[in-house]
Amino acid sequence: MATMTKQLETDFLKYVKKIKAYEEALKLMYWDLRTGAPKKGVEGRSEVIGLLSSEVYKMETSEEMESFLNQLLDGKNKDQMSEIALKTALDCKKSFERMKKIPIDEYQAYVTLQAKAESVWEEAKEKADFDMFRPYLEELVETTKRFIGYWGYNGNKYNTLLDMYEPGMTVEKLDTVFREVRDGIVGLLQKIEKSNSKVDTSFINFYFPKAKQEAFSIEILKQMGFDFNAGRLDETVHPFQITINQGDTRITNKYDERDFRVAIFGVMHEGGHALYEQNICKDLAGTTLARGTSMGIHESQSLFNEIFIGRNKQFWKRNYDLLKKYTSGQLNNVSLNDFYFAINEVRPSLIRIEADEVTYPLHIIIRYEIEKGLFNNEIEVQDLPMIWNEKYKEYLGVKPDHDGVGVLQDVHWSSGSFGYFPSYALGYIYAAQFKHAILKDLPNFDEIVANGDLIQIKRWFIEKVHQYGKMKKPLEILQEATGEDLNARYLIDYLNEKYSKIYHF
Amino acid sequence: MATMTKQLETDFLKYVKKIKAYEEALKLMYWDLRTGAPKKGVEGRSEVIGLLSSEVYKMETSEEMESFLNQLLDGKNKDQMSEIALKTALDCKKSFERMKKIPIDEYQAYVTLQAKAESVWEEAKEKADFDMFRPYLEELVETTKRFIGYWGYNGNKYNTLLDMYEPGMTVEKLDTVFREVRDGIVGLLQKIEKSNSKVDTSFINFYFPKAKQEAFSIEILKQMGFDFNAGRLDETVHPFQITINQGDTRITNKYDERDFRVAIFGVMHEGGHALYEQNICKDLAGTTLARGTSMGIHESQSLFNEIFIGRNKQFWKRNYDLLKKYTSGQLNNVSLNDFYFAINEVRPSLIRIEADEVTYPLHIIIRYEIEKGLFNNEIEVQDLPMIWNEKYKEYLGVKPDHDGVGVLQDVHWSSGSFGYFPSYALGYIYAAQFKHAILKDLPNFDEIVANGDLIQIKRWFIEKVHQYGKMKKPLEILQEATGEDLNARYLIDYLNEKYSKIYHF
Repeated sequence: MATMTKQLETDFLKYVKKIKAYEEALKLMYWDLRTGAPKKGVEGRSEVIGLLSSEVYKMETSEEMESFLNQLLDGKNKDQMSEIALKTALDCKKSFERMKKIPIDEYQAYVTLQAKAESVWEEAKEKADFDMFRPYLEELVETTKRFIGYWGYNGNKYNTLLDMYEPGMTVEKLDTVFREVRDGIVGLLQKIEKSNSKVDTSFINFYFPKAKQEAFSIEILKQMGFDFNAGRLDETVHPFQITINQGDTRITNKYDERDFRVAIFGVMHEGGHALYEQNICKDLAGTTLARGTSMGIHESQSLFNEIFIGRNKQFWKRNYDLLKKYTSGQLNNVSLNDFYFAINEVRPSLIRIEADEVTYPLHIIIRYEIEKGLFNNEIEVQDLPMIWNEKYKEYLGVKPDHDGVGVLQDVHWSSGSFGYFPSYALGYIYAAQFKHAILKDLPNFDEIVANGDLIQIKRWFIEKVHQYGKMKKPLEILQEATGEDLNARYLIDYLNEKYSKIYHF
Repeated sequence: MATMTKQLETDFLKYVKKIKAYEEALKLMYWDLRTGAPKKGVEGRSEVIGLLSSEVYKMETSEEMESFLNQLLDGKNKDQMSEIALKTALDCKKSFERMKKIPIDEYQAYVTLQAKAESVWEEAKEKADFDMFRPYLEELVETTKRFIGYWGYNGNKYNTLLDMYEPGMTVEKLDTVFREVRDGIVGLLQKIEKSNSKVDTSFINFYFPKAKQEAFSIEILKQMGFDFNAGRLDETVHPFQITINQGDTRITNKYDERDFRVAIFGVMHEGGHALYEQNICKDLAGTTLARGTSMGIHESQSLFNEIFIGRNKQFWKRNYDLLKKYTSGQLNNVSLNDFYFAINEVRPSLIRIEADEVTYPLHIIIRYEIEKGLFNNEIEVQDLPMIWNEKYKEYLGVKPDHDGVGVLQDVHWSSGSFGYFPSYALGYIYAAQFKHAILKDLPNFDEIVANGDLIQIKRWFIEKVHQYGKMKKPLEILQEATGEDLNARYLIDYLNEKYSKIYHF
């Protein structure tokens, strides 16, 4: 019996490895499209991606897969499997069921709709024309509602969507922590607005050539412990991190020659994602577990590096002089303190991806409230621009001039990625909670950062987070690393402490 | 009946397109491995390449493919097919039969042997140890002989190998033209050696930074008509051209900062390959015909650009000043004439890929004679070092110090690519023959080159060669473009005329 299970397990893992092989090819093609593939090849490439993706879909939902899962997850076999094989099987079962519950023709129509909606969205955003995008968004929402019907739900319909990006996360949990975050930030914002201290950013927008910014970015990545033998850095329009295989994790960056902050914090953000992927235990290679456990935990790693390291004054104690070396002297008369203030200016604004670290969560919470309303039939798509603008007014005190900088600004909804947004704010909450926990093991955290010894911090995360990949669930990792459940207090405390010093209140 | 054929044809072309989709993924992975994929990802990548390659093999030799070919190439259907579908079917049938005639276990053993032999060769070359490589080479030769037994042959056993790279080429034809080339070059070399004129190359090896060489290379590619919207240029160790899809043809280049000739003639060479691939008729996209018709015709395009344009004095009339702009003045006191002589210096040497344009064919003819001997049982693998060295002494008057710069220098045999070498010399002969023919349509060829109006030349090749892809056979293309069969006279005439002026005899 044990031998039969072993053989079955081996065959199953081989089958999964084949699926992963196709995914590796797909990911490389995706990376290539976004880092320099010639224009005239794009159409042919898209067809190839479509074709190989449908091969992956076939394998993931095949009778062979079903038979593997039925046999392996049957009582007796289950007990004899290795933990890796068992968790891979459970992971595959989750995908299998999610896909199989949708009739194939509806799934195909959905894929077509997604592609169409994305290209319509792009034009609609350009033209600031919500009505152009509205019918597609309505159909995406309706289709997703129907899918929730097929998938089923516990408690709140929106939970089913949350679970796709953050397994185990629920509306009940999010309502609690997001309320705390919202109230905390709104209170903080009022203090900042009342403050007499203003931050000077007049010296920020000097000409900083791309090649110099790139060279500085590479220095920082090396400090962080990014392994260039297991990854590379390229230029792109919308930066991302992608793992091609276990020894090949790539990041991309964007260079604004009139605002170096984009590249520096961008590369630390993507670099944080990459550290996670580079340090997943090699035993998981070729399984579905060799990846970050959730979008939220992933985001905690990017934000930890971007914010808790990159926007930390200690970090610049070491690196401000280094940065100056890459400039042509434009920062020579700017003190470290003024520099530090400038890169931490708080200013409520319209665009999520340009938001400062205080107001950022409010952008997310607005989207969360809207999505929750949509899928519980409390909000209609047609009312989105109005609701969006009201919420921005209420939470951030700003109002979009047009929908292009309002409800149309993000790509997510056009690809049907409902339930994704909360991970951004969750990642931030996780990161602050990790920051609090790390101080128990590395009480001299600030000194470590000031010395540029970031490898110590990386090592802490490898031990607590990275190595496990998808072997542990997000809240399990959080609990084990920090000793408690999700707690938004640490984020609010961090922001209050930091900004009371910058804005003197 | 016609409708049935139409449906069958559509289904068949769809099946072929699927195979091509896999190949596109494979080619991108290959390109990526050679242009910057991180080291630690290579092992995983190799597995993925192996896995997807075996899927391609399965499709190319499947019962489905067999059934398509049997139905389509049956008398009645054959007459009703489109020319593209018919020629694709014939091309697939050729591959199908070549693969199917080899027992699957022997084929797999061969693939394993190839991989192993390549890595052993690399070490053996490094150590200049032929005996280390010998057993692998013996097995490769023996296996290939057995395969020739399965495949069958006409006239000479080596014809079967030649046909893989140059359809329709035979030992009979090659013996004739190669004899003419050899005799012609040996005679020319004697004159050059006796000449009192020496070429000064003392000013060549100045420091020329990589970035500057790259920028100049891009200028030249643009002049040639390389379409950067349908291709890109990257750096690599062993330059190559690769077509990812019909709108995406990539070239790579190598930069020696102490010898700019490597990059300049390298990029014109690969650029010539690329022009061919970029200008194949788009109707052939997704079929097996969307590629150069043979290795020899392909090489004629790279060599035409490298030699008949790039090493032509007219070309430098226009571009020498441009080149100087990219240097730091090191060529300011060198006349165009001296520069032109220096880039055309003739010097018999040991290494094929470093040979000048006069001695290059001799390197190829030596390999041809050895391969022909091997497969007709006239030469034993164990005697190769001795035979190699004797032939180098006889034809080129040089003798390798060790086998690393002798019989072990090329990668081809280690991957079992017997029959490939002749295409290099054939390409040269074709190119000279094209050069002679082009003068009928563009009698002011030299003026065109001197004016940098290379697009006119590109247009000629599109019309005569490029557009057809694999729709026409190599000798058909040659015949139609030049009005005659393969004729080595033009190469010999070209060399004699050019070098009598450089070496004054």
